Amino acid sequence: MKVVDLRSDTVTRPTAAMRRAIAAADVGDDVYGEDPTVRALEERVAGWFGREAAVFTPSGTMATQVLMRALTTPGSEVVCESDAHVVAYEAGASAINAQVQFRTVDGVRGRLDPDVVRAALRPAAFPYTEVAAISVEETTNRGGGAVHGLDRLRALRAVADERGLALHGDGARIWHALVATGDDPVAVGRTFTAFSVCLSKGLGAPVGSLAIGDAAVIEVARRWRWRFGGGMRQAGILAAAGLHALDHHVDRLAEDHDNARHLATRIADAMPGAVDLDEVETNLVYIRTGDRPAAEVIDALGASGVRIGAMGPHLLRAATHLDVDRAGVDRAADALIAELSIR
Amino acid sequence: MKVVDLRSDTVTRPTAAMRRAIAAADVGDDVYGEDPTVRALEERVAGWFGREAAVFTPSGTMATQVLMRALTTPGSEVVCESDAHVVAYEAGASAINAQVQFRTVDGVRGRLDPDVVRAALRPAAFPYTEVAAISVEETTNRGGGAVHGLDRLRALRAVADERGLALHGDGARIWHALVATGDDPVAVGRTFTAFSVCLSKGLGAPVGSLAIGDAAVIEVARRWRWRFGGGMRQAGILAAAGLHALDHHVDRLAEDHDNARHLATRIADAMPGAVDLDEVETNLVYIRTGDRPAAEVIDALGASGVRIGAMGPHLLRAATHLDVDRAGVDRAADALIAELSIR
Amino acid sequence: MKVVDLRSDTVTRPTAAMRRAIAAADVGDDVYGEDPTVRALEERVAGWFGREAAVFTPSGTMATQVLMRALTTPGSEVVCESDAHVVAYEAGASAINAQVQFRTVDGVRGRLDPDVVRAALRPAAFPYTEVAAISVEETTNRGGGAVHGLDRLRALRAVADERGLALHGDGARIWHALVATGDDPVAVGRTFTAFSVCLSKGLGAPVGSLAIGDAAVIEVARRWRWRFGGGMRQAGILAAAGLHALDHHVDRLAEDHDNARHLATRIADAMPGAVDLDEVETNLVYIRTGDRPAAEVIDALGASGVRIGAMGPHLLRAATHLDVDRAGVDRAADALIAELSIR
Amino acid sequence: MKVVDLRSDTVTRPTAAMRRAIAAADVGDDVYGEDPTVRALEERVAGWFGREAAVFTPSGTMATQVLMRALTTPGSEVVCESDAHVVAYEAGASAINAQVQFRTVDGVRGRLDPDVVRAALRPAAFPYTEVAAISVEETTNRGGGAVHGLDRLRALRAVADERGLALHGDGARIWHALVATGDDPVAVGRTFTAFSVCLSKGLGAPVGSLAIGDAAVIEVARRWRWRFGGGMRQAGILAAAGLHALDHHVDRLAEDHDNARHLATRIADAMPGAVDLDEVETNLVYIRTGDRPAAEVIDALGASGVRIGAMGPHLLRAATHLDVDRAGVDRAADALIAELSIR
Repeated sequence: MKVVDLRSDTVTRPTAAMRRAIAAADVGDDVYGEDPTVRALEERVAGWFGREAAVFTPSGTMATQVLMRALTTPGSEVVCESDAHVVAYEAGASAINAQVQFRTVDGVRGRLDPDVVRAALRPAAFPYTEVAAISVEETTNRGGGAVHGLDRLRALRAVADERGLALHGDGARIWHALVATGDDPVAVGRTFTAFSVCLSKGLGAPVGSLAIGDAAVIEVARRWRWRFGGGMRQAGILAAAGLHALDHHVDRLAEDHDNARHLATRIADAMPGAVDLDEVETNLVYIRTGDRPAAEVIDALGASGVRIGAMGPHLLRAATHLDVDRAGVDRAADALIAELSIR
Repeated sequence: MKVVDLRSDTVTRPTAAMRRAIAAADVGDDVYGEDPTVRALEERVAGWFGREAAVFTPSGTMATQVLMRALTTPGSEVVCESDAHVVAYEAGASAINAQVQFRTVDGVRGRLDPDVVRAALRPAAFPYTEVAAISVEETTNRGGGAVHGLDRLRALRAVADERGLALHGDGARIWHALVATGDDPVAVGRTFTAFSVCLSKGLGAPVGSLAIGDAAVIEVARRWRWRFGGGMRQAGILAAAGLHALDHHVDRLAEDHDNARHLATRIADAMPGAVDLDEVETNLVYIRTGDRPAAEVIDALGASGVRIGAMGPHLLRAATHLDVDRAGVDRAADALIAELSIR
Repeated sequence: MKVVDLRSDTVTRPTAAMRRAIAAADVGDDVYGEDPTVRALEERVAGWFGREAAVFTPSGTMATQVLMRALTTPGSEVVCESDAHVVAYEAGASAINAQVQFRTVDGVRGRLDPDVVRAALRPAAFPYTEVAAISVEETTNRGGGAVHGLDRLRALRAVADERGLALHGDGARIWHALVATGDDPVAVGRTFTAFSVCLSKGLGAPVGSLAIGDAAVIEVARRWRWRFGGGMRQAGILAAAGLHALDHHVDRLAEDHDNARHLATRIADAMPGAVDLDEVETNLVYIRTGDRPAAEVIDALGASGVRIGAMGPHLLRAATHLDVDRAGVDRAADALIAELSIR
Repeated sequence: MKVVDLRSDTVTRPTAAMRRAIAAADVGDDVYGEDPTVRALEERVAGWFGREAAVFTPSGTMATQVLMRALTTPGSEVVCESDAHVVAYEAGASAINAQVQFRTVDGVRGRLDPDVVRAALRPAAFPYTEVAAISVEETTNRGGGAVHGLDRLRALRAVADERGLALHGDGARIWHALVATGDDPVAVGRTFTAFSVCLSKGLGAPVGSLAIGDAAVIEVARRWRWRFGGGMRQAGILAAAGLHALDHHVDRLAEDHDNARHLATRIADAMPGAVDLDEVETNLVYIRTGDRPAAEVIDALGASGVRIGAMGPHLLRAATHLDVDRAGVDRAADALIAELSIR
């Protein structure tokens, strides 16, 4: 029995077609700037968002870290949501790699409120810690895939502009936001001073992210990539998968969103209160387990070939993606409903 | 006409008696551990709070920074109030010196709520950023001199203990808290894993703070003091002032508190709403200027020999201290009332 | 006409067989520790050198950086050769990522002399900067592929042991050393406290290095890999190439060494003094251009389809590797001799 | 019996006149830039060396550290002598505070040779580590008080200029060099991009150093001083001692030099080979103990009230200073000669 793995959209395995693209990749030494496939990917992604330049990195964390360094100065402060990936999941990396500190503010489902952000900006007078950037996650990870959308991003940009700050975007799942809203990627891409996108969450590539922005910022980011150990040689092997994903796996995210809503609806119908349908905006579904410990439910589901993640002691997260079809979602829904019905 | 300077309690000048103590200081090379006056001060302050050891530093910021390094590991997180001195006023020092990041939570008047802190602690599982410490300010600086007090500190310590975290205290004005509450300094001192006190805020010494804790922690802090450039030679010149201040200027903080309340009451009586008397717990008074820009009021007062600080576009702060007597406070109250009456 | 690219052994493109291995790789999410091919590679490389554990990284620089952090403490010193890759080519990464400083000593062709290293170790007494590690490169990069060999490595280890220091190995081309000396890889591997190896220099894999050592050290290194942005998802795509390279491309390094010697001999015969044959120990050949600027020679050779690198204003470097056969080497020799004969 | 303490010139205690100056100091809050004595000292020292600005710091290490940060960028390299204070005695501070790495070169008695420095500069091409500064110590500390002098400093400056590097001066004992050479302080001061001087080594002030340079560099240094915890309040207490020292204790360094030479000559006469008179340029004297362990000699001398330092297992250092007169030097010479005569 095939496992239905809903723990994260990072677990996807490359398709047969993607593997063919990988095997056929035209490559060179990217440290010398000579990998044609990496260059094609960087140009394509920069162009997709109407920006000058992009740099390929081995992870979303590195894409974020090189931008933290490129957009701030040591000893400055970055305002972000309290549960944003950059502050919650990067093991303190920004303090080490970029020497910045965070001012964390609470948002609803990870969304930054422009007024709350404005109120959190310290005066621009030494020795107040200098504010350098606002960092926004699109979609929100721990917030459950909530979408800021173009209007709110523009409002955050306006707050940044009032103070001359950078607006940094962690766009690990920005493709999901674009598919959900229909927003123009160029309009969204130009909202940020610089931002990252990921090819291995949702899009199904095995490895890789990009940092995107003006040429000068990306040039700085490229140098920090070297220092952090992200300079790879024949990286076209990975970039070919990324290009394939951009050709074939962006529009289909709508299926993942449909599957997420289908899963959410089935559970909500069977178990009122376990899922709030209003919270399901993209491909992530949060499921409350009531009195049952989330860890116990996860163990029980595992026995029936359904894997799911925990976001709290009584909170599960399901992520739909390329490797889960409607039948798999229904199997997961059956198993979840059966398990959550046990008291 | 003598200036009445209420901008901060850091502006005090040494008294004649303190200057005599300074001039007569028995000194040695403290880098070699041979300054008898520094040693006496370190032992006295450690003993005051029932702790094993203390190390003298040239500033409160350095006392905090050496403790940040001694109590945390690079890449970990410290929970503090959003406006705490360590995050607001140290120009990003902790990210640079200790490579820690902050999780800022909002308190009322700078006071940490134990339940809010508990809720902000991330799970102890990599790659969640590791939480290393809770940092608490006693009294609160930007919070207007609010006092946590022993019970609340113990509640914060309990939260720290639940997770094996350090409880760091920024006790720049801890003397004010002790005088206001009558709490036992040993009981308070033992609540923290390690903490700092300041001799030049309120106590009237020209320069100096101390970091206090177990001997092992202070030994580590001492080494970081060297790296940050805080190793001084005949520092007994400064320590002598500190010892004098401990002998003569602690109990008298009650006068400063009385003067603060007198100032607040006079303004509140004359200008209802300008001051909230419930907020005046120690030596700091916040005064709302209504529509008048704070900067304008400050300029006008300066002309009549009264200096006062701004904490916001329409918010003034007055700090009472050793160099301001009741007559000075009345002069300031007169000037403030006159000025704030102008529309 | 096919280009003969002797600039570096990093320029190799994956073979058809390697591409098939890549395309067929069994993969999983390596951030969750679930990529079977990455695990197989880590275990195989650790076992090759008789060590407990290894961690896969996207570059040699990252493998070195995570070990710098795992083997030292902030504020300590690492002794290395003045031109070692870690100090010369990593753009100051160790100061940023690991907060260590270097004590650089001069070696002959990049080789550390144990007595020189011993003399450079500072006393173990605060505030002398604490010495934490000796870092040795095998083979030397800027030193022209010189081999330390087991005996000298053991002598360096003895110096490290006298003081309780770590012996760090940058083994980017350690395979070349093993092939050149016939030393037992287990004996060599156990000489280091921890060390790195590279799959994309000489071995012909597109991307990837590993850090190797005791399980506890590698566990720490793995966490720093996350912070530096080296956590990849389906990295088995890359690891499969590494396993293929270990199966097929290690022993054949002897051909690269033969080709290097052939190239060197041809030039030395034609242009006495241009090459010192005693310096050719592995796959790197240094060629002196006399009065001709190296850059000019490089340009001229480029026109005849031969690419070569500069290591100084009048010094060229040729690296033999998997993508250059004997015919290619002869073409390069012809072109070099012709070009260097011009005055 | 009064102890003759030759361990270091940092052990001096303030004179009665200096204590009077301290007690009478006109002070203010220097964090607000309002301490008139600190300002007077900063202006005086800047003017002394013909430079725009200076900033007062609690230690020489901090003066050096704020300049490291102001003169370099994170990830760059500083060339210095292998035993320079900045690399040997600051416990790795520059890697932590300024994120720079060192390229250490060997000099004779700590003196940098311009040609050796030039040869150690890496090419200005990424990813070679970027060279940012040359750091020179005047006089040399571990080098035994050797003087570079104006001509050699200018030659180093020329090397720096060839590559657009900063020339950093650690002038902890620059006063000794000026007295020994008679060089124009303005000419020397203008040789450096920025440099530090110390008031508590030789000059006899209890605490304090200054960083000196162009106004823009010093403004940056001032902000880093805050971050490292060097912002002091009524620091005029210390600055008054510094002004007194500048008035009274500079020219008299010639006496210390005479005393050093007297001590050296007496020992050399009595114990040929124990002292090399050519090495005695300023106030430091190195004495070889032959087979006797230095620690043993130090212990024995201590019993007769003479304290002296060790610079190696068989090497002593004596520093003459304000608190040691000719009679004291003779007592030390007697004790040393007696002790070293024992076999």
